[in-house]
Amino acid sequence: MEKTFKNLIKADYPYLCGSKLLLAVSGGVDSVVLAHLCKLAKLDFSMAHCNFNLRGDESDGDEKFVVDLADSLEVDVYTESFDTLNFAENHGVSVQMAARDLRYEWFSELSSSAQFEYTLTAHHANDNLETFLINLIRGTGPEGLTGIKNERDNIVRPLLGFSRSEIESFAREKKYKWREDSSNASDKYMRNKIRHQIIPVMEEINPQLLDSFAKTQQHLQESLDLVEDYMSLLYPKLVEKDKYGYTLDIEFLKKVPNQKQILYQLLKSFGFTEWDDVYDLIDAQTGKMVLSDTHRLIKDRKKLLLTEHNEKIGNKEYHLEKEEDLVMIPGMGSFHISEVEKMGQTSPSCIYVPERKLKFPLVIRKWKKGDFFYPFGMKGKKKLSDFFKDEKFSLPEKEHTWILCSGDEIVWIINHRADNRFAVEKSDSKILKICIT
Amino acid sequence: MEKTFKNLIKADYPYLCGSKLLLAVSGGVDSVVLAHLCKLAKLDFSMAHCNFNLRGDESDGDEKFVVDLADSLEVDVYTESFDTLNFAENHGVSVQMAARDLRYEWFSELSSSAQFEYTLTAHHANDNLETFLINLIRGTGPEGLTGIKNERDNIVRPLLGFSRSEIESFAREKKYKWREDSSNASDKYMRNKIRHQIIPVMEEINPQLLDSFAKTQQHLQESLDLVEDYMSLLYPKLVEKDKYGYTLDIEFLKKVPNQKQILYQLLKSFGFTEWDDVYDLIDAQTGKMVLSDTHRLIKDRKKLLLTEHNEKIGNKEYHLEKEEDLVMIPGMGSFHISEVEKMGQTSPSCIYVPERKLKFPLVIRKWKKGDFFYPFGMKGKKKLSDFFKDEKFSLPEKEHTWILCSGDEIVWIINHRADNRFAVEKSDSKILKICIT
Repeated sequence: MEKTFKNLIKADYPYLCGSKLLLAVSGGVDSVVLAHLCKLAKLDFSMAHCNFNLRGDESDGDEKFVVDLADSLEVDVYTESFDTLNFAENHGVSVQMAARDLRYEWFSELSSSAQFEYTLTAHHANDNLETFLINLIRGTGPEGLTGIKNERDNIVRPLLGFSRSEIESFAREKKYKWREDSSNASDKYMRNKIRHQIIPVMEEINPQLLDSFAKTQQHLQESLDLVEDYMSLLYPKLVEKDKYGYTLDIEFLKKVPNQKQILYQLLKSFGFTEWDDVYDLIDAQTGKMVLSDTHRLIKDRKKLLLTEHNEKIGNKEYHLEKEEDLVMIPGMGSFHISEVEKMGQTSPSCIYVPERKLKFPLVIRKWKKGDFFYPFGMKGKKKLSDFFKDEKFSLPEKEHTWILCSGDEIVWIINHRADNRFAVEKSDSKILKICIT
Repeated sequence: MEKTFKNLIKADYPYLCGSKLLLAVSGGVDSVVLAHLCKLAKLDFSMAHCNFNLRGDESDGDEKFVVDLADSLEVDVYTESFDTLNFAENHGVSVQMAARDLRYEWFSELSSSAQFEYTLTAHHANDNLETFLINLIRGTGPEGLTGIKNERDNIVRPLLGFSRSEIESFAREKKYKWREDSSNASDKYMRNKIRHQIIPVMEEINPQLLDSFAKTQQHLQESLDLVEDYMSLLYPKLVEKDKYGYTLDIEFLKKVPNQKQILYQLLKSFGFTEWDDVYDLIDAQTGKMVLSDTHRLIKDRKKLLLTEHNEKIGNKEYHLEKEEDLVMIPGMGSFHISEVEKMGQTSPSCIYVPERKLKFPLVIRKWKKGDFFYPFGMKGKKKLSDFFKDEKFSLPEKEHTWILCSGDEIVWIINHRADNRFAVEKSDSKILKICIT
């Protein structure tokens, strides 16, 4: 066993030799063993310890232990103290989640400021099985069953192939000192039940449980890798990205089997929870939508449109004074007003208006139901909703449409069409050019 | 709860009404409840009980109980007695597997002889979770985690959505009588540990365990459905079927990601166990092969050839006497010998040979290393191995090649090429026509 541990880094992680490493050390047996292994392998590493202040003096004792360990191993150590309970409360997450977020955020900061190439953690095979069982018991998607990844995002977990008892035996044999592991303190109740009441029974049935489990999990991961491959294949046929978000082609979706599951795969990272409502959109009427905390999915004819919630583009109004020559409007651009001697070339982003017809300040606002205007170059008036229909605007396009008003009258559907009533006449001497860039 | 049970069949399985049904009844609470529900729903059903003779008098008691139950419900009952232990030993399977195989085989026989349209079993949600955990503990592929299918192969399991305790409560409320469930007797040790020691702890952590688990398992099944879809998409590009088996196109395989996993998906039902050896074939030399109990996978240039083991085509020899006019050879066809006055048109499946040159009985055998012949229409002799090479024979083609010999000399590479030495000369009067059909 010792031999396996001793050669582990050089045999399986040769790229760690010569790299600048940050080692997460809680003070528990796993991270202590990994620290010693790193020292034996003569790696260039510093240690980092999070004090989550969850167990008073004990937490401080852990911190002191780790600082002393770093001293005896002659490596640098970083420590940081967190008000974990407060963070959890403020962010509405569990204490466990809070600790994890704080830890990884701090590691990431340390890594960029001190230029560490990899972060090492001491997760082992039992952690993997315990996490699997926690997720299984709580209920989870397939991703929750596939386990901690060995190497991902520059985080390396060299002990994932070893069990807790193997690590402990090795530590005893080498007479290492350690503190009882204080990590996962917040889900201790659940994790301890699993660790002490469930896994031992499983091991009575199959003494090779951890090995079998590692293979089971690998097979599962491999299957899910194929799902990813399949999605990569479908993606360019199904999804188009534009400036407002993503457009999903329902007609193509309907040609492939298991549409719902494909929709789930495409949308799973956008925070939706009401999946039946999402699936119902496939056959819903135009305009139906489903919301997540961050995104919105809208049925629009033969498409599904996925856009971010954009609260900035609410019902805000902006005013344009005559003497202002530049007004910035968030999410739209900048307005320029200038007096010109004669009309130049018109374009969707520029209009010419006789000053005498305008009531200042002009108002810039979103369009609303019932709005109508007199499209330039046409006879009579038209509802904006009909104009959008004729021009085949998508829902997000409609939503991102701003109008320029003089009093109650529409002067310009910005970026799209001017109004006849405000057309320049031969007799007009004072002409304003209004442009958006 | 009662309401749910009472309406279950009509609401969720309307197609069962009016169909002729076979209900598997062990005498345990689950199958007893299902029997009563079928009766309440006025279904047209008979009962079937397997006596596996695994617990002596108790087994006979179960049988008597089921016969009495059928009597009281006024439905037909079939019973069958099995020597399960013997079957398990003879077939080298576990007692549990033996019981399952015997049960489903008998149900299938009953269904075809008595024309039952569906077989109903009383599997419930706990069975599903227990089976999941058994497979998890033993180690399994993803399929072992997805659970019992509700409706498959005309077997319907209406109670899969209910827990054991819900079923028991309902049975107590209705004052039904039942026998303690004798099924799964052989894996009782393992199943009981899971049932009494593991699942209760999981339920302490999450009282809604069975519901969460059902969703987890459904998500997993949906992901695996996508793997199937992906494979269906790749299959026609990757695999070609011919008369010897299947040909896998390695060049195409190398173009897609996760080749090994795809190879696994393609080959998983052919009994291979040495998967690393299988994967190594991708880059192996022509001729390398991996065996399963039933199949053989051979590297052949840019292909992998999958064929059944065919022991019939071993080293057997067949003899052809002059006076026989028809000889059947298993796996090849029938030989006809006839005397003709003059040569007709030659073809790969017919040769003309002067009788005087033949030593009877002629021998029909597989080719072997070192064989050579004098190809008709060419000068000199040639090794059979070189002939195969020039003709671009695949490995299975070579293996399925038979030769006809006169003494030590090859007369005919059957179906392919005759030998010069046995060509008919002008002076020959007695000509034999030998054909294979």
